[in-house]
Amino acid sequence: MPIVELHVLEGYDPQEKQRLGEALTNAVRFVVPAAPELVTVMIHDMPAHDYYRGGARRAPAPARPDPAGLVREFLSTMEARDLEKARAMLAEGFTMTFPGTGPMETLEQLIDWSRPRYKFVTKTYEGFDAMQGAGDAAVVYCRGTLQGEYLDGSAFEGIRFIDRFEVSDGKLTRQDVWNDMAEVKANAGAQA
Amino acid sequence: MPIVELHVLEGYDPQEKQRLGEALTNAVRFVVPAAPELVTVMIHDMPAHDYYRGGARRAPAPARPDPAGLVREFLSTMEARDLEKARAMLAEGFTMTFPGTGPMETLEQLIDWSRPRYKFVTKTYEGFDAMQGAGDAAVVYCRGTLQGEYLDGSAFEGIRFIDRFEVSDGKLTRQDVWNDMAEVKANAGAQA
Amino acid sequence: MPIVELHVLEGYDPQEKQRLGEALTNAVRFVVPAAPELVTVMIHDMPAHDYYRGGARRAPAPARPDPAGLVREFLSTMEARDLEKARAMLAEGFTMTFPGTGPMETLEQLIDWSRPRYKFVTKTYEGFDAMQGAGDAAVVYCRGTLQGEYLDGSAFEGIRFIDRFEVSDGKLTRQDVWNDMAEVKANAGAQA
Amino acid sequence: MPIVELHVLEGYDPQEKQRLGEALTNAVRFVVPAAPELVTVMIHDMPAHDYYRGGARRAPAPARPDPAGLVREFLSTMEARDLEKARAMLAEGFTMTFPGTGPMETLEQLIDWSRPRYKFVTKTYEGFDAMQGAGDAAVVYCRGTLQGEYLDGSAFEGIRFIDRFEVSDGKLTRQDVWNDMAEVKANAGAQA
Amino acid sequence: MPIVELHVLEGYDPQEKQRLGEALTNAVRFVVPAAPELVTVMIHDMPAHDYYRGGARRAPAPARPDPAGLVREFLSTMEARDLEKARAMLAEGFTMTFPGTGPMETLEQLIDWSRPRYKFVTKTYEGFDAMQGAGDAAVVYCRGTLQGEYLDGSAFEGIRFIDRFEVSDGKLTRQDVWNDMAEVKANAGAQA
Amino acid sequence: MPIVELHVLEGYDPQEKQRLGEALTNAVRFVVPAAPELVTVMIHDMPAHDYYRGGARRAPAPARPDPAGLVREFLSTMEARDLEKARAMLAEGFTMTFPGTGPMETLEQLIDWSRPRYKFVTKTYEGFDAMQGAGDAAVVYCRGTLQGEYLDGSAFEGIRFIDRFEVSDGKLTRQDVWNDMAEVKANAGAQA
Repeated sequence: MPIVELHVLEGYDPQEKQRLGEALTNAVRFVVPAAPELVTVMIHDMPAHDYYRGGARRAPAPARPDPAGLVREFLSTMEARDLEKARAMLAEGFTMTFPGTGPMETLEQLIDWSRPRYKFVTKTYEGFDAMQGAGDAAVVYCRGTLQGEYLDGSAFEGIRFIDRFEVSDGKLTRQDVWNDMAEVKANAGAQA
Repeated sequence: MPIVELHVLEGYDPQEKQRLGEALTNAVRFVVPAAPELVTVMIHDMPAHDYYRGGARRAPAPARPDPAGLVREFLSTMEARDLEKARAMLAEGFTMTFPGTGPMETLEQLIDWSRPRYKFVTKTYEGFDAMQGAGDAAVVYCRGTLQGEYLDGSAFEGIRFIDRFEVSDGKLTRQDVWNDMAEVKANAGAQA
Repeated sequence: MPIVELHVLEGYDPQEKQRLGEALTNAVRFVVPAAPELVTVMIHDMPAHDYYRGGARRAPAPARPDPAGLVREFLSTMEARDLEKARAMLAEGFTMTFPGTGPMETLEQLIDWSRPRYKFVTKTYEGFDAMQGAGDAAVVYCRGTLQGEYLDGSAFEGIRFIDRFEVSDGKLTRQDVWNDMAEVKANAGAQA
Repeated sequence: MPIVELHVLEGYDPQEKQRLGEALTNAVRFVVPAAPELVTVMIHDMPAHDYYRGGARRAPAPARPDPAGLVREFLSTMEARDLEKARAMLAEGFTMTFPGTGPMETLEQLIDWSRPRYKFVTKTYEGFDAMQGAGDAAVVYCRGTLQGEYLDGSAFEGIRFIDRFEVSDGKLTRQDVWNDMAEVKANAGAQA
Repeated sequence: MPIVELHVLEGYDPQEKQRLGEALTNAVRFVVPAAPELVTVMIHDMPAHDYYRGGARRAPAPARPDPAGLVREFLSTMEARDLEKARAMLAEGFTMTFPGTGPMETLEQLIDWSRPRYKFVTKTYEGFDAMQGAGDAAVVYCRGTLQGEYLDGSAFEGIRFIDRFEVSDGKLTRQDVWNDMAEVKANAGAQA
Repeated sequence: MPIVELHVLEGYDPQEKQRLGEALTNAVRFVVPAAPELVTVMIHDMPAHDYYRGGARRAPAPARPDPAGLVREFLSTMEARDLEKARAMLAEGFTMTFPGTGPMETLEQLIDWSRPRYKFVTKTYEGFDAMQGAGDAAVVYCRGTLQGEYLDGSAFEGIRFIDRFEVSDGKLTRQDVWNDMAEVKANAGAQA
């Protein structure tokens, strides 16, 4: 029954602590095969006047936003084609790579890339995975299926996709996208 | 400067503890934007005679193997087409889904699927991401590029791929694969 | 100077904590021969949002009532022959065994048993001992002397008794009674 | 899921720690209605050079012997009428009170008291309860039934008894005994 | 990165905790050559109902006043020749030793001693050092230079001094003073 | 009863821990007026594979030598006029200030300064005070009395002195000396 104690400067709210509780539980279970309900996490809030580093008080930094939440919001914003709002979620130096593209730096490039491919596309999510990487960025994976309409007006659906995002300081820094759209088209062509 | 203390039954070796140290550090950083070198993790080994649950001693469970290591080994084994060894790494009920396939249950199905596509393929890795999921499985992502030879003897390289694995009890339970092979072929055809 | 730290979900009141402080102190002293004033107990209250098991919050269970207090109250209630109130303190399946009886299941059986023995009896307490057993029940011992009036109107006093109670979930589940009444009567008869 | 941590000078053996583990678990459960398997006890051994009181090192005191074990041994020794060995287990000032006696100070007094009552008696144990009292003494209760032979050669059995002992510094300081022997005889006489 | 945790009865204010944070940091650094910013101190306030010694609650003692602050105040008070206020800061049995004196017990003795030496003197501080001694007293050192006017009206300045104080229970118990005044005068005489 | 826990990388020996135990005890007592024997210090050694900062292991730095011990050794070495050995104990940039001198940088300057003053001098120690300062240096005070022989062959003794040292990285960086020698000579002259 592993027990985790986290000592942290006071200032994180219950939702942020819930995220800490889950992340620490899973960090232990990554190595120790304990049933989840046998992993206990205790968070000890340290008021600023009870915590000294180098004999000096320290202020807590605001929590990082949930990166999976950011990614979800970005994806909805893009589906709604609200480019201005989406752009505000991107960090300096953001790049995105889609099937058949090199790294693109602007959302306009993406729009241009998609124009000859489909009229519109929306996503059905099957799952998100999110973790902090060793570097500064959190990594978020989102997978599921695409549905939408080709340029010829025919509909498609059930096309598998996966997106990988990196998130730093509350902004997206990188997006990599894979999907089966070309495979599906090739098969369709082959069957035609 | 968040401080994590883990109390765990004695029996994990230094490499397993290193994995715990990193996973706990990143779990904290998933929420708290502390510089990594300001996150301390202390592991307190509890000898069996110093730890009681319900007044009774408990034995530590052997550590889960590193799931990213397992995935790496599986991928090399498959590249070497050592199907017997690869099969031994799969759990009951393992399924794999590749571009254009439904879930396949045997490695032979995969071989059949690949036969009309390429003579051989190898992988250049760009990165692995691994985490414990909320359920029993750990999730491992592996991405990079494919190189190999088509059936017509022409070579290919630099084709982006991503694999997602689930690992439980030291066995692979699921593999999902995406890549740009069809996109690349379609483009090649378009340019031809 | 043994030091005990208890981490427990927030919600126990100062009296309940006092009972915890005493019980933990005595638990240590049961094995370690430290002077009581060298045994320190610290209780760390964990607010619900700072405590996670399996990544989920938990609610604290209400404290068990003091079993010695329950027994005291039951004994007073019986002395006052308030059978209805006393009955409400008994668990399903309560049994009591008195000198010369088998297990009795109702207070009426007890009244019947006592009718040919004395007009009334009251208790002077010399001491209570209470502890949690390994099973679900707490055990309470109460000892002292009986005084009262025999059927012939003669008074008695100073007759040693001891009662053993088991208490679960705030209800009495078992009472076992021993006393010297028969011995005293036999001696009185012998001397007559 | 209450968690108890005990910090204690190094030097207690696994059996002594097992007793601590159980006593601390039950101390918590005396107040907190947690299932036993959700109460964790961790014992932190402090080597002498890692523990300072008033800036000075301290030596651990040898553990108190298990008082229930002492009582069991005393009772067997008395059944075997090994008075010398039994006497060595008694503290200065030991007293014992049996049905119909005042406090007796020597085992010889007990033998004299029993002589007109039965030829011999042995005990069948139904249970022991042991706890540290608030004072120096541990309290041990032992209950069960007596069997043996009366002076007239007739056998008896199944007579309920309970003994209460106090134990300090590894010696018995007090014994109080109750049983139903007189009650049984009176009933037998009444039925005769 | 040494980590210090202090468990102490609730009741010390942020300034008193700041002093604890600094003193504990420096205590570690006295032995462990860690950079100050890598020494963490966490103070865990224990509410009275969460802390038991011998099963009983304890009240926290009011903090000791900062001894360096007391000494500073005493020195200013003496400079201002407010003897009544200064006297109130002295413990029973206070002694002071100045260059060429034995232990003096009253401020009046000091005034008498200084009268043939200078008209007045004030202090420029270069530094204070304060620490708790192993005994009851804290020790405070104050060093710097003296300036003032000799009896003949000539000024002096830059004369090195050092004072050593002992402070117990918020009162001064001892003062020892050294300075270069005689040396400076001798040199002046030699040069004249 | 304040309780201090220090978590520190394994590698300090019992004497170094003793110094930590005393320094931490006195750090608490600097603010909290607890009797020394009610201040507990527990040192938790962290093996390197149980301690991670930024997910990486760290090596413990060797303990700082006891600065009071260094000072004692330096003073004996100087009394024995073993200048070579004494010089090896001085840091780059060491300065010393004696009565009537400015800062001197070499032991030879000190010898020159003392030559017209006395033939030799030795010290009787009354006490040492040592503490870690807020900066890098530890501060050591040494006080007592001087005895020796003046140039004219006459003996002196009982002359109060105090030395203040700063010690960094095991080397002396600064020495400041005060004593009553000039005062004593002036008084002797005045009485002559």
